[in-house]
Amino acid sequence: VLYFQNQKFMISKLLVIKIGGNVLDNPEACQRFLKTLGQLPQQKILIHGGGKIATQVAQKLGIATQMIDGRRITDQPMLDVVTMVYGGLVNKNLVGSLQLLGHNAIGLTGADAAIIKAHKRPLKNGIDYGYVGDIDQVDGLKLNNFLAQNLLPVIAPLSFDTASGGLLNTNADTMASAVAVAMAAYYDVNLIYCFEKKGVLSNPNDDDAVIAELSPSNYATYKEDGTINKGMIPKLDNAFDALQKGVTQVTICHADQLQEAVSGSNAGTKIRL
Amino acid sequence: VLYFQNQKFMISKLLVIKIGGNVLDNPEACQRFLKTLGQLPQQKILIHGGGKIATQVAQKLGIATQMIDGRRITDQPMLDVVTMVYGGLVNKNLVGSLQLLGHNAIGLTGADAAIIKAHKRPLKNGIDYGYVGDIDQVDGLKLNNFLAQNLLPVIAPLSFDTASGGLLNTNADTMASAVAVAMAAYYDVNLIYCFEKKGVLSNPNDDDAVIAELSPSNYATYKEDGTINKGMIPKLDNAFDALQKGVTQVTICHADQLQEAVSGSNAGTKIRL
Repeated sequence: VLYFQNQKFMISKLLVIKIGGNVLDNPEACQRFLKTLGQLPQQKILIHGGGKIATQVAQKLGIATQMIDGRRITDQPMLDVVTMVYGGLVNKNLVGSLQLLGHNAIGLTGADAAIIKAHKRPLKNGIDYGYVGDIDQVDGLKLNNFLAQNLLPVIAPLSFDTASGGLLNTNADTMASAVAVAMAAYYDVNLIYCFEKKGVLSNPNDDDAVIAELSPSNYATYKEDGTINKGMIPKLDNAFDALQKGVTQVTICHADQLQEAVSGSNAGTKIRL
Repeated sequence: VLYFQNQKFMISKLLVIKIGGNVLDNPEACQRFLKTLGQLPQQKILIHGGGKIATQVAQKLGIATQMIDGRRITDQPMLDVVTMVYGGLVNKNLVGSLQLLGHNAIGLTGADAAIIKAHKRPLKNGIDYGYVGDIDQVDGLKLNNFLAQNLLPVIAPLSFDTASGGLLNTNADTMASAVAVAMAAYYDVNLIYCFEKKGVLSNPNDDDAVIAELSPSNYATYKEDGTINKGMIPKLDNAFDALQKGVTQVTICHADQLQEAVSGSNAGTKIRL
C-alpha cells in the first residue's frame, strides 16, 4: 500500500491468525500449524479458541454445557472453566510450543495490559448469555508495542469487563476480527481464519466443495438458500465487518493451508467486498 | 543506596511481593491485600501461589494430590490442573482485580516472553517429583522492560521447560526469590513474603509469637530445636539465598501487614545476614 504527501507511504504487513478449537484438540495438527506459522516471515498475532476442550473439562467437573446458536451460555462455574482452559491450559501450551520453536510468544487475555475491554452482554431476545463479553475497545497501540519488542502475542478468547474487573467469555472469531480492525491503523492486515475444513463449503457433505470467493451478493444468496447457515454466519459476518473497517484481506481456510493462504494462492475461501 | 565513581549512584526501589494461596482463597482478604499493594508508590512485581485452589480443582476432577515435604508431585494430569489454576484462574482474576483498581497488570508464566527458564527436576533421593521445575534463569531485562512500560507483572508459579516447550510446576516462594535476585541487578529490591500468619512463629499455637528477626545463627538454633520446621524451612532458605545474592531486604509477614513491611516498621519477621 502506497500513499503520497503527508501520509504513510509504507505499511508493514501483519498477519492476524485465528486457530479453531478442533485443531487445538489434535496435537499433531496443532504442531503442524504452529510450525508453518513460525516459518512465515511476517509479524503476527495469534488468536485461539478452545471450546471443545472447555466442554470436556466442564463435563469432568460435572458442569453442563448449554449452547444457543453456537454460543456458550456462561454462568459463574462455566466462566471459571473457560478462564482455566482458554487463559491457562490452551494459551500457555501454545506459548510454550511457540517458544520451543524459537518464537518469543507472550500469552494474553483481554485483562492483561487491558488490551481488550468489553462489557457484559445485555439480555438479547430474552436470552441471558451470562458472562459473555461484547468488545468495546482493542488497544492496538499496546499490541503494537509488544510486536515492536519482537513478541508474538497469543490471545485467549477472554475479554476484560471494565465494570467488574472480571473476565468475559468472548467468541474467538469476533475477537480476531476486532484485533485485525484495531491493527489496521498501523499495518496492512491479513486476517486468516484457520479451522478443520478447507473453507466455506457449498455442500456440507463434500469437504472439497469449497466456495473460492464470497462477496456480499453471493453470501446473501447462499444464506437465503440455506447453503451457509448456523455457526458459519457469525464467522462470515465478522469477516465482512473486518474488511469494511480497513482490514486488507480475509481468508477462511484449513489449518494446513496457512502458508498458501498467506502467499495469496487459491487456498480456502477469500472474502471480498 | 549510593555508590561513587564509575558506579550507579541512584537505584530505584522495587518491591517483589509474594502472596500465598491461603490469602488468595479468601476473596475479602485478597481484595484488601490488592488494595494495599496498589497504594504503594514503588514499582512492583507480584508472584502468587494457588496450591489450595489447585488441590480443590484436582479433587473435583478426581485427581488425587500427593505432597512430599510440602511439595506437590506433578504428573501430567496434575500439570494440566496447575496450568489451568495458576496460569488461568488465579492469575487472570488477580490481573483483572488490579486493572479494576487502576493498575496496568500483565499476567505471566515463565513461558511468556520466556521470562523464567527451568529444567525438569531430576530424581531427588529417589523421589520423582514429575513436572516440577528447577529455575535456571530469570530474564530480568525483559521484566525491566515491562516495568518501564508501566506494566505490573503478575507471575504464576509455572516455569518454562526449555527442553520440552512445556510448563513446569514451580514453588512460588522459590520463584519470588529468583525474581528478586534477578531484579537486584537493576533495583534496590525489597522482597516480601505475604501469607496468612504474622511472620515466622516461635510457637505454632500462638499467632502473636512472631520472631522479629532471623539471622543465620538463630535460624540454625530454631531449626535444631524444631521451632522452625517443615514448609517454613524452604521458604527461609529462599529468603537467606536472596539476601546473599544481592536483594536488599526480605520480610515474611501477614498479607494485612504489607504496608508496614514496606515502610520499614516492625511488622513480620525480618531476615538478616
